[in-house]
Amino acid sequence: MPGSSFGHSFRITTFGESHGGAVGVVVDGVTPGLEISSEEIQLQLDRRKPGQSFITTPRSEPDTVSILSGIFEGKATGTPMMLILYNSDAEPSAYNAIRDLFRPGHADYTYLRKYGIRDWRGSGRASGRETSGRVAAGAVARKLLQRRGVSVLAYTVKAGGIACQQFDASVIEHNPLRACDPLAAQQMLEYITRLKEDNDSVGGIVECRINGLEAGLGEPVFDKLDAEIAHAMLSVGSVKGIEFGAGFKVADMTGSQHNDQMGSAGFLTNNAGGIIGGISTGEEIVFRVAVKPTSSIAKPQRTVSVSGEETVISTEGRHDACICPRIVPVVEAMACLVLEDHYKRQAALLA
Amino acid sequence: MPGSSFGHSFRITTFGESHGGAVGVVVDGVTPGLEISSEEIQLQLDRRKPGQSFITTPRSEPDTVSILSGIFEGKATGTPMMLILYNSDAEPSAYNAIRDLFRPGHADYTYLRKYGIRDWRGSGRASGRETSGRVAAGAVARKLLQRRGVSVLAYTVKAGGIACQQFDASVIEHNPLRACDPLAAQQMLEYITRLKEDNDSVGGIVECRINGLEAGLGEPVFDKLDAEIAHAMLSVGSVKGIEFGAGFKVADMTGSQHNDQMGSAGFLTNNAGGIIGGISTGEEIVFRVAVKPTSSIAKPQRTVSVSGEETVISTEGRHDACICPRIVPVVEAMACLVLEDHYKRQAALLA
Amino acid sequence: MPGSSFGHSFRITTFGESHGGAVGVVVDGVTPGLEISSEEIQLQLDRRKPGQSFITTPRSEPDTVSILSGIFEGKATGTPMMLILYNSDAEPSAYNAIRDLFRPGHADYTYLRKYGIRDWRGSGRASGRETSGRVAAGAVARKLLQRRGVSVLAYTVKAGGIACQQFDASVIEHNPLRACDPLAAQQMLEYITRLKEDNDSVGGIVECRINGLEAGLGEPVFDKLDAEIAHAMLSVGSVKGIEFGAGFKVADMTGSQHNDQMGSAGFLTNNAGGIIGGISTGEEIVFRVAVKPTSSIAKPQRTVSVSGEETVISTEGRHDACICPRIVPVVEAMACLVLEDHYKRQAALLA
Amino acid sequence: MPGSSFGHSFRITTFGESHGGAVGVVVDGVTPGLEISSEEIQLQLDRRKPGQSFITTPRSEPDTVSILSGIFEGKATGTPMMLILYNSDAEPSAYNAIRDLFRPGHADYTYLRKYGIRDWRGSGRASGRETSGRVAAGAVARKLLQRRGVSVLAYTVKAGGIACQQFDASVIEHNPLRACDPLAAQQMLEYITRLKEDNDSVGGIVECRINGLEAGLGEPVFDKLDAEIAHAMLSVGSVKGIEFGAGFKVADMTGSQHNDQMGSAGFLTNNAGGIIGGISTGEEIVFRVAVKPTSSIAKPQRTVSVSGEETVISTEGRHDACICPRIVPVVEAMACLVLEDHYKRQAALLA
Repeated sequence: MPGSSFGHSFRITTFGESHGGAVGVVVDGVTPGLEISSEEIQLQLDRRKPGQSFITTPRSEPDTVSILSGIFEGKATGTPMMLILYNSDAEPSAYNAIRDLFRPGHADYTYLRKYGIRDWRGSGRASGRETSGRVAAGAVARKLLQRRGVSVLAYTVKAGGIACQQFDASVIEHNPLRACDPLAAQQMLEYITRLKEDNDSVGGIVECRINGLEAGLGEPVFDKLDAEIAHAMLSVGSVKGIEFGAGFKVADMTGSQHNDQMGSAGFLTNNAGGIIGGISTGEEIVFRVAVKPTSSIAKPQRTVSVSGEETVISTEGRHDACICPRIVPVVEAMACLVLEDHYKRQAALLA
Repeated sequence: MPGSSFGHSFRITTFGESHGGAVGVVVDGVTPGLEISSEEIQLQLDRRKPGQSFITTPRSEPDTVSILSGIFEGKATGTPMMLILYNSDAEPSAYNAIRDLFRPGHADYTYLRKYGIRDWRGSGRASGRETSGRVAAGAVARKLLQRRGVSVLAYTVKAGGIACQQFDASVIEHNPLRACDPLAAQQMLEYITRLKEDNDSVGGIVECRINGLEAGLGEPVFDKLDAEIAHAMLSVGSVKGIEFGAGFKVADMTGSQHNDQMGSAGFLTNNAGGIIGGISTGEEIVFRVAVKPTSSIAKPQRTVSVSGEETVISTEGRHDACICPRIVPVVEAMACLVLEDHYKRQAALLA
Repeated sequence: MPGSSFGHSFRITTFGESHGGAVGVVVDGVTPGLEISSEEIQLQLDRRKPGQSFITTPRSEPDTVSILSGIFEGKATGTPMMLILYNSDAEPSAYNAIRDLFRPGHADYTYLRKYGIRDWRGSGRASGRETSGRVAAGAVARKLLQRRGVSVLAYTVKAGGIACQQFDASVIEHNPLRACDPLAAQQMLEYITRLKEDNDSVGGIVECRINGLEAGLGEPVFDKLDAEIAHAMLSVGSVKGIEFGAGFKVADMTGSQHNDQMGSAGFLTNNAGGIIGGISTGEEIVFRVAVKPTSSIAKPQRTVSVSGEETVISTEGRHDACICPRIVPVVEAMACLVLEDHYKRQAALLA
Repeated sequence: MPGSSFGHSFRITTFGESHGGAVGVVVDGVTPGLEISSEEIQLQLDRRKPGQSFITTPRSEPDTVSILSGIFEGKATGTPMMLILYNSDAEPSAYNAIRDLFRPGHADYTYLRKYGIRDWRGSGRASGRETSGRVAAGAVARKLLQRRGVSVLAYTVKAGGIACQQFDASVIEHNPLRACDPLAAQQMLEYITRLKEDNDSVGGIVECRINGLEAGLGEPVFDKLDAEIAHAMLSVGSVKGIEFGAGFKVADMTGSQHNDQMGSAGFLTNNAGGIIGGISTGEEIVFRVAVKPTSSIAKPQRTVSVSGEETVISTEGRHDACICPRIVPVVEAMACLVLEDHYKRQAALLA
């Protein structure tokens, strides 16, 4: 089974390459009657688009979404919504110099090994641009979740080794890192600016909090809510790990420390991060993802050509020094897709 | 869509509760002609079964597997293999005292919220015993992978805050922790013994290494190999996180440090953990999962009853002080299931 | 993707061969709280079991079902129900004489070509006995449908060239053909008795009527209700065709004859058979399936051996002279599985 | 689970309404390296497009396909192919008069009952125009099948009660009915012309023959090859029945007449229509589908409005007097999609 679809009762299928005709998504299973406009979807896409700040790529795709089906008189009809973004700023010739080289950290080598053929313009299907479809579909899911009272918020908690020391939701959309701590954000920005001048990039950690979710979502034993969120997040290009609640710290904890005890008002702690036995507890869901440093760096690196000859490569061009701020809306979108799917799956179970 | 099936081209469906008639699995898509016996499957189940050491639960299920279909004259026919383990040591009466209480850390509360009804004998479907079916099916996948030259090895690298300092594969199956460092294993055992006397439990980290895998496995953009492994691992009851290769350390790294450069003999490093762009590179796949402390502890904890009354609970009975050594074969089994599925999916793509 | 699972939101997976250890089914997605007993399931299995009359095979399987999971204190818990029927009357030695021959009309040849290996005991996985799992699962779906006010009734309308001339539901379960016309049933029985003495068998047509179904079920454009019913029916071994409402007669009709016009009280006719545009209209659903003559006949037939040598085969043993009466409960079961799945899918869509 | 996707290892997702922005399809799982051009796809679409003759609708959509992804330098990359046809001749105002009426035979009523909202322009998603995406995707599958030596040919065998008496493949594409008998084609045309002047339409039967298919395709027990073909065909709007090989005639046959006996050179007959036990035998696959008369007729018919008031409707406009010739390429396309999927599924099983 090929891998360009995600979800079951709320299901998306994405298509498109970095430098082909378009990228986009088909969203199937949208609750009929939902009022949604392309402007609402555009809002989320604008958070992902390039060129938002000095540290992100200046590629100037307008990233304008069009809705080609599934909407009638402003409302979803329940038939597939087709959301498309045409590629306008495609400069494939910029990639001519490195078309036969494997860029370190990129999927050039693995795509060629898998498919035996590779679209070397940009990163082809492996480009971050592919996530536009996810963000567009996530905006539809988010609208449905808002009606349910669910909110999803992601933000940078670490970048370039610098960690946030406080959580202030109000600053997230007002600093280039989308960090939750304005002071840390300033330090991150300074550090990343230096790194960028040194032709390098940095990784980070993005955290996500989900509130208002009802208890009972998740489908044991394999499609547990955390398993599906993990699937969703690790399917994002730069993500190398995920942890829920106390996460990897559980290795240093005892059962009496980790167990979330209960009182008549509910759970006394939330070490589980809002999911126990793969099912939502009704508490806040908290998870963090590890984001690797952007692979495209201008600093010279050793690599080989398609024919196996050793060489040195320097990936010039339009790239992000830290991808965290642009991963934030993707993390939110993927979380929304999983949650809406599980609301519908729970409705089917109880029907 | 309910959640008791996993995989696509190689697909399993598990069933069974801790104290019902049986647990087991239907394995669909087994390559016809595979020679496999119940003894080979039993070998893996014996690694998961209770009572292997002082630190694991003494529940004395023989955990004997029977093959009820799909095998003819010692060979797989390509039709579904049905593998079953009857429950013989079920003592549901032991749970009478706590049938109306939510055990902290357990799925009692969430199952009741999801389903509106709960089998309170043992942990019902949420019991670790459910993983027997996974291990049995994993043994079938492992046999197929062995023919492909693939090996999958998991082991404890941290428990109770004590980390292994070296990797010695030869000691793993010869210490109760299944740790890869004999000295650390001894320290872990001493610490856990003390904790157990204190009616507590500990968490840990299990690492897994996969060797011999061909490059090119994984189905972008959603069913990337790491995304599916993450799904598989987070679907295991006690797992709260996963990381690949450098994992969460990427947050402190630069692109030039993290990128795996290449020479004519292949990759110079393996920070990616054997997967780039969601596709296997042909290098060793390395990932780690965070295992929470066993929820069942005899130490008194605050909780509430089904009707909301506050009380104190002490989960007596047969439990593991550290579940890591018994998670090891489950981690291996789930990894085998994902890998075999992706070998078959790749064959379909190229067909 | 292997083929032993059916359904999406209400999903079954069957296993088992004619002469292996057992046949059965895992039912996933059962609405929690449903009260159901093995006796209720047994009632349906008894309608399918061999030895009900002179014209059906005398194989004396008790066909007793056991529920091994998913039920607690008489109610479904929402976790997978495992329903199993152990094989007790297996006489594989009876098949020794023809183990290397391809029986005409049977799947012996195609299974060998597909899998490269064949369980020659009985028909292995291709045996009609496989449908026991479907009937057992169908009984669970039927119970859920009864709560929705839906009834599903199948019966023989033609056998051995003799067609029913009237529809009398009260006689169906009281004649060996399960025909809806007592006079035709008598004629069919006489004719089939003669054919059986001549070592031959006959085919027929089974009709199914579904009442009480709400309008709006079916998932365009591919999982239309009629498309999924067709899939379900053609997956039954002996079925070679299906038609809805006016069926193949539409080839002789005009639009003005065929279109179901409407009045204020609803549809004026039901040529569509209760489904328009792949969605239920709320009218009675009517479809018919073509059932081929039983392949196993004692009359000598030409065939070849596995090694290609020509020979003559006579399939002695325990066989049905007309499979229609035993197909009836299978048709009902498959219809129930499709309908319950679509109720749940519709609930998911609207959630 | 919503219903706009079809197939497993070779999987399509369609989108689009009659009078929205576009219709199209995403094709996932295309064998990388396949050479295919938009011209090859267009060839098939031209066979389906309106206005080919007097008896088909004069709607003058150019129906020009664009490939927006998945192709690089003329070859499939293995990533999703996105094929789109923009709607240019949309005249929604033509439907203003009947926007609140349920057209007899159309899905107007059932869509409203299912979704609670209806796009009344044309037939919305229920329009035959939706099949453009299927035909486009089918052209890709057909190209893959051609490399395997498989050919798929459909044609009209009956229309308006007039049946073909001979099979001459060479005339099919040279008569407006796509009938396989030139004399019958002439009679059909005359009859349909008269009916059309009488503001009526006719139904028919389309037959399909598949040659060159290898033995062993089909996935018992639920995804048998005939079950999946039936699913595919009944998912086409106008199709009300399907039969394989001897089809409904089996009801009048004995086992000794129906069984396909074998000699050293292969099967002696092909009553099974090339599929036994749900698996291809290697013989020609033959099936027929019943096509209902076009629902849109200018002849006045009784109906009701959305608010339940009785009225009379006359569906003026651009419609086909007999849809058979335009169903032919759709039947072929759906058959190609099923076959290519099963080639890939078989490869996965044996891998």
